[in-house]
Amino acid sequence: MTDKLIKDIIRLNNPTVVGLDTSFSYLPEKMQSACKTLVDVGKAISEFNFTLIDRLYKLIPAVKVQVAYYESYGVSGMQAFADTVSYAKSKGLTVIADVKRNDIGSTASCYSNAYLSGVTINGKRVCPFESDYVTVNGYLGIDGIQPFLDDCKAYDKGIFVLVKTSNPSSNQLQDKVLTSGETLYEAVADLVEQWGAETIGEYGYSSVGAVVGATHPAQATILRKRMPHTLFLIPGYGAQGGGADGAVAGFDERGLGGIVNNSRGIICAYKSDKYRDDNFAVASERAVIDMQQDLSSALIRAGKTF
Amino acid sequence: MTDKLIKDIIRLNNPTVVGLDTSFSYLPEKMQSACKTLVDVGKAISEFNFTLIDRLYKLIPAVKVQVAYYESYGVSGMQAFADTVSYAKSKGLTVIADVKRNDIGSTASCYSNAYLSGVTINGKRVCPFESDYVTVNGYLGIDGIQPFLDDCKAYDKGIFVLVKTSNPSSNQLQDKVLTSGETLYEAVADLVEQWGAETIGEYGYSSVGAVVGATHPAQATILRKRMPHTLFLIPGYGAQGGGADGAVAGFDERGLGGIVNNSRGIICAYKSDKYRDDNFAVASERAVIDMQQDLSSALIRAGKTF
Repeated sequence: MTDKLIKDIIRLNNPTVVGLDTSFSYLPEKMQSACKTLVDVGKAISEFNFTLIDRLYKLIPAVKVQVAYYESYGVSGMQAFADTVSYAKSKGLTVIADVKRNDIGSTASCYSNAYLSGVTINGKRVCPFESDYVTVNGYLGIDGIQPFLDDCKAYDKGIFVLVKTSNPSSNQLQDKVLTSGETLYEAVADLVEQWGAETIGEYGYSSVGAVVGATHPAQATILRKRMPHTLFLIPGYGAQGGGADGAVAGFDERGLGGIVNNSRGIICAYKSDKYRDDNFAVASERAVIDMQQDLSSALIRAGKTF
Repeated sequence: MTDKLIKDIIRLNNPTVVGLDTSFSYLPEKMQSACKTLVDVGKAISEFNFTLIDRLYKLIPAVKVQVAYYESYGVSGMQAFADTVSYAKSKGLTVIADVKRNDIGSTASCYSNAYLSGVTINGKRVCPFESDYVTVNGYLGIDGIQPFLDDCKAYDKGIFVLVKTSNPSSNQLQDKVLTSGETLYEAVADLVEQWGAETIGEYGYSSVGAVVGATHPAQATILRKRMPHTLFLIPGYGAQGGGADGAVAGFDERGLGGIVNNSRGIICAYKSDKYRDDNFAVASERAVIDMQQDLSSALIRAGKTF
C-alpha cells in the first residue's frame, strides 16, 4: 500500500493529503439551513465531501477522513463516513481513516476488522469502513498493534502510529525523558520502526508509518534519521500553525517519506480572505494548488527533490 | 456522576460492571444463523443485549459497552451501540462507553460531543451515543482531555483515562522509567489525579477516573495511594486471568474506589462448563451473582468493607 501511495505522490508531484474533517459548521449556510435532522446532516456532509473529491482527486494522492467529526453526528454521521471513504476509494485515492484506535489485542482486532480487513457474515467478508490506512495509538504496546500488522500483510494495508503529535500539549507525556536517555516519543519511534521491519517496500518504506506533527520540525529531522523506513503522516500544516519548511523537515533527501495533511485550510478555503468563493470546491482546488507549490518550494529550499 | 455510581455500588453491594463486548460470535447459534446482513447482525446484537440488561439491571450498577465490537459491524453495529447505550440508561444503569478516544483539542471536542454532550442541529441538542462515562487515552496530554473535562462539569459526566492497562504488553511503554524516577504510568496517574481536582464528590472521588488492570495488583495498590481521589475502572477479571484479590487491590479501606469489569465471563457464561444453559440470560445472572460474592469475599479478606 505504501508503494502505491508513494508512486502517486511522485506521479502528481504532490505529497498533500486533504483532511476531510467535515464539521457540519464548515458547510455553506445554504446546505446547513436545509438540515432538520441528523439524517439530513449526514447526507449534506457526504454531498459536500463528494463534491470536493470530484474536484480534487486528480491533484492529490490521498484523503484523511477524521472519524471524530462523523461520530458526533451519530449513526447518520457514520453512514457519511462510510460513504465518503468508499467514494474516495472509487476515485483511486488512498484513504487514511484517522481514528487513533487502541485497545487490548482481542478488541484491537475488532477495530482492524472495521477499517482494514472486515468481518465474515453468512460466509461473506464485509469491511464496513474499508480504508487503506488507519491511525493508531501505541500506548498499550504490541498486543494492541499486532492485529493491525497482521491485516496490513494479509490485505495490503497500512497504519500510522502516533509518535509526536502536533498539538501544544504533546510535550506533556511524549517529551518525558526516560532513564535510557531518550524521550518517550523516541522510544515509540523505535518500536514503530521495528514493527514495520517485515513490510518494507520498493522505496524503502514499510506499511507502518508514524504521525509526526509539522509543528515540531526539529524533532521531525531527528526522527527522520531514527526511522529510516517509516513514512510520516504530518499534520499541523496550515490552521495549526506549521509552515511548509517545518512540514518537509521529516522528508528524506529524495523528497520522499512524508505526506502532509491540511484539513480546514483546504475544505474551508471558500470562507477565507484569500480563496473566498461561492463555489467551495473551486476555492479548495486553488488552495490545494498553492499548497502543492508551497511544499515543492520548501523541498527545493531544503535540497530534497526527486 | 461518580457519586451516583458509588451510591448504586453501595446499595447493591456490588462493584461489578458487565462488559457488553458483544461479538456476533458470542450469540447463540440460532440467533446467528438467522442473520444474512449487517443490518440483521445489528438487530440481533441489540436483542441479545436488551435481554441481558432486562435480567441484570437490578443486580449491577453499570455496564461498559465496548464500541470496537459494534464498529466492526459498521453503521448497523453503531445503531446497535446507540440502542444498547440508550436502553441501559433507561433502566437506570450507569453506562461507560469504552471507546479509548484521543485526539488534538478541536477533534477531541467532537468525540466528547458524540458520547457526552451532543451537537446542536436546527437549534436542538442531540447526543447520538449519550453515555455517562467514556474511556480516553491521554498520550496527547491535556489539550485532548480538556474538552471531556469541560463536558464532565457541564453535563455531570465522567471519564476514565488509561493509566495501566490489563494486557500483557502494557509494560512495553507504560512501565518505562523516567529520569524523575517514576514510571510513565505513574506520571499519567499524577496527571489524572490533577485533572480531577475540581470535580471531587461526596465520597472523595472525582469525575476523572483511571483504567487500572486487575492483572497488575501490585501496581494497583501503589496507584490507590498515589491517586486518592480517582475511581478505578478495573478490567482483566475473569477471561483475562485476573482474580478477585487482584481486582480489589485498587479499592480503598472503605471497600470503595473501584468497579470491576467482566465481559466474556458474564455474557458468554451460557457457553461455559460452569453455567451452561439454553437461556443465556439465566447463565449470565448466575455468573453475576457469583462474581458479586467473589468480590465481596475478596474485600472481606482484604479488610476493606463498607
